[in-house]
Amino acid sequence: MPPILIAGAGLAGSLLAAQLARAGYRIALHERRADMRRVPVAAGRSINLALAARGWEGLRRAHATNLVLHQALPMRGRAVHERSGAVHMQPYGIDADEVIWSVHRGQLNQTLIDVAADAGAELHFNSRLDGVDFEARRARLVDENDGSVRELKFEVLIGADGAGSAVRAAMEAEAPLGQHTDFLDHGYKELNIPPRGDGAPTLDPTALHIWPRGGHMLIALPNPDATFTATLFLPHAGAVSFSACADPAAGRALFARDFPDVLALIPDFDAQYAAHPVGVLGTLRCPRWHRGDRALLIGDAAHAIVPFHGQGMNCAFEDCVELLDLIEAARRAGGTDWQQVFARFEQARRPNAHAIAEMALENYVEMRDAVADPGYQLRRRLELELARRLPGHFLPRYSMVMFSSLPYAYARERGERQRALLLELTAGKSSLDEIDLDAAAASVAARLPPLNG
Amino acid sequence: MPPILIAGAGLAGSLLAAQLARAGYRIALHERRADMRRVPVAAGRSINLALAARGWEGLRRAHATNLVLHQALPMRGRAVHERSGAVHMQPYGIDADEVIWSVHRGQLNQTLIDVAADAGAELHFNSRLDGVDFEARRARLVDENDGSVRELKFEVLIGADGAGSAVRAAMEAEAPLGQHTDFLDHGYKELNIPPRGDGAPTLDPTALHIWPRGGHMLIALPNPDATFTATLFLPHAGAVSFSACADPAAGRALFARDFPDVLALIPDFDAQYAAHPVGVLGTLRCPRWHRGDRALLIGDAAHAIVPFHGQGMNCAFEDCVELLDLIEAARRAGGTDWQQVFARFEQARRPNAHAIAEMALENYVEMRDAVADPGYQLRRRLELELARRLPGHFLPRYSMVMFSSLPYAYARERGERQRALLLELTAGKSSLDEIDLDAAAASVAARLPPLNG
Repeated sequence: MPPILIAGAGLAGSLLAAQLARAGYRIALHERRADMRRVPVAAGRSINLALAARGWEGLRRAHATNLVLHQALPMRGRAVHERSGAVHMQPYGIDADEVIWSVHRGQLNQTLIDVAADAGAELHFNSRLDGVDFEARRARLVDENDGSVRELKFEVLIGADGAGSAVRAAMEAEAPLGQHTDFLDHGYKELNIPPRGDGAPTLDPTALHIWPRGGHMLIALPNPDATFTATLFLPHAGAVSFSACADPAAGRALFARDFPDVLALIPDFDAQYAAHPVGVLGTLRCPRWHRGDRALLIGDAAHAIVPFHGQGMNCAFEDCVELLDLIEAARRAGGTDWQQVFARFEQARRPNAHAIAEMALENYVEMRDAVADPGYQLRRRLELELARRLPGHFLPRYSMVMFSSLPYAYARERGERQRALLLELTAGKSSLDEIDLDAAAASVAARLPPLNG
Repeated sequence: MPPILIAGAGLAGSLLAAQLARAGYRIALHERRADMRRVPVAAGRSINLALAARGWEGLRRAHATNLVLHQALPMRGRAVHERSGAVHMQPYGIDADEVIWSVHRGQLNQTLIDVAADAGAELHFNSRLDGVDFEARRARLVDENDGSVRELKFEVLIGADGAGSAVRAAMEAEAPLGQHTDFLDHGYKELNIPPRGDGAPTLDPTALHIWPRGGHMLIALPNPDATFTATLFLPHAGAVSFSACADPAAGRALFARDFPDVLALIPDFDAQYAAHPVGVLGTLRCPRWHRGDRALLIGDAAHAIVPFHGQGMNCAFEDCVELLDLIEAARRAGGTDWQQVFARFEQARRPNAHAIAEMALENYVEMRDAVADPGYQLRRRLELELARRLPGHFLPRYSMVMFSSLPYAYARERGERQRALLLELTAGKSSLDEIDLDAAAASVAARLPPLNG
């Protein structure tokens, strides 16, 4: 039997390869880039990731929980840095043990590649997918080192090759998909914050730091080596933009005005600012994710989203779990009907991928703006209070997304209803003391059904 | 069914736990110390390890090859530092791809604990084995944090708890084992060599460095962070000894005389020398390794050896493989007869454990003295030449130990015969040019049978 060919040894591809190889499938994993375990990834392109419940479930299914846990740092909440310099902490969870985890993309990816290889997947690096003959089940792969070409017969082809997917391009070449990418008019630039002279971190390493400034923001996530990875999100064009701040001097002036505390922490600011590229962000909407019983797109290749909910990887890992479950169920039913597996996958995942794409866009506004808003803060306090009073009945949307495996579409829809209630209950109020919490809880319990699941 | 209880989450215990858990056995792994993934191990007690063929086979059987490979550094040979300051390289292998691998004990151990946990083993730290009721198959475990006691029923108990094994002590308490430890009259002290100011390593990172000085020596192994771990081996007592060099000033004087190049690389020599303990080294000879069908000792708990062949871990990992194979064979035969498994294990491993113990002692003399000897160097060159000319027929003893899985006992016995031939062929000679290599190869081929395996 020819192998299941997975294109892309990024996070989703290597996790899926690990899961499937471990379940006994023959897997060939082909990656265009060099083996990142040997060749370092370029700086400035490695946004840290926030691992949450869905991501952990994916890792559990690849038997990699412990391996990743010990390279991850818990973040208990957002540390919001106001213009005044004041910092206030907004906890993520209802309980102190509800945290999200900062992981280094490169390190995590390397671990997953190792786990896939150790599970028995066949790995090929510098191997670029150059074309697919879907009818014949053959992929054309070019060796990026010497240009040599090989043809590989596959059972099915899984495109886990990111927003610029070559598998998607091959599907598009055969028949237009109607795909569309909405680019955000904001981009990002990464900067590294070194430790203090004595090796200690310069900021609280148990928080995700945000400097919300209305139309733009800076964030920073902790790394295990006491550094932080800071990311500046800024419009591409306009008065305050990457165009207006194209050179280090203008970047420095922006930081001096909006993030002076961070500027003081980056001694080589100018060099980093000049060297690190501006990344683009977008939402990919692709109406078709599979090509009959031959090929399927997962993760960013199917539904790239903006990073503001920290769910791109978590969503892709949930894709892997869902796909694994469908494949395993089909195998147990006797013989895998790939057409049916792929169709079911698309049907189940599409509404959820759409929902998280929208919530990720909404969350940008929340992060760069609302977290500093008193109304938002009051609603946030109230929803945490309601969640404590109404377990099984009320869960903040953020918690549904980050700390549960409730479907994203459900979280979004329910979140809308909850938001309306929260707006109503906080109308005209400026602190929790002014709200009759017993009455509020009773009202919410009466007007919302219990949570699913 | 009660679990297989493994005492000790060191290298052997965690590897065996990973292998058995992955094979479907219920494993409880109890470790007296705190979880090293959270609590750093004390400095000066973490000698680097040299991973070789037997070790890799153990890792392969736990599906951890790739995970470990990317934290390991290849060492292609010994870099012998003479008193004159001259350095010459003695390759380890017959081919350039025969290398041994420097790994950091702590990092490797953490990975193996993660792999064991991810494979499904139940982990308990700060859990000290305080006594065993072998008849009732019950272990008494004390929580080192709060002193609380729990009794744990086990199917069998595996002592992977090192030279000071509590399982061995429990066996001894029931009936004397006749065990004996020969302590070496030399001890060791570890020192860390930092990178250069620009972050580069100060020595060749692809070699194991030796400064042989006759009665004592210094070695250094590379680490991935561009540091080296240097280990000074010195008699406990005498003119040049740890007693005579008890304080940093005396240690510094010794280094200034015998290892001035290394002294120059350790800016905080005095602090390290004062802070790092002198470790003892010994060979454990224990006539009994198992207690009927109830308990078995593996690794250092059964046969601790001196570190000079870099085989302590490799031998322990080979124990794990052998035990796993015996258990799996017994299961396939229907129902595990533990008495038989343990007896067979002991029978198979004892001669090999004895052989590597002896070879490790012999290798100390080779390292601290012979590597600098012209006669040794000539024999070494000749044996590499013979190995190239007689594949399948001649393999240096070092290669049999490090690069093959030929039994240690066989390697030792065969090594004796080969040594006699090498001495004969090099008698009166001072360079390879003086030796008729065709005639030498023919003579060896005629007088030695082909290699086993």
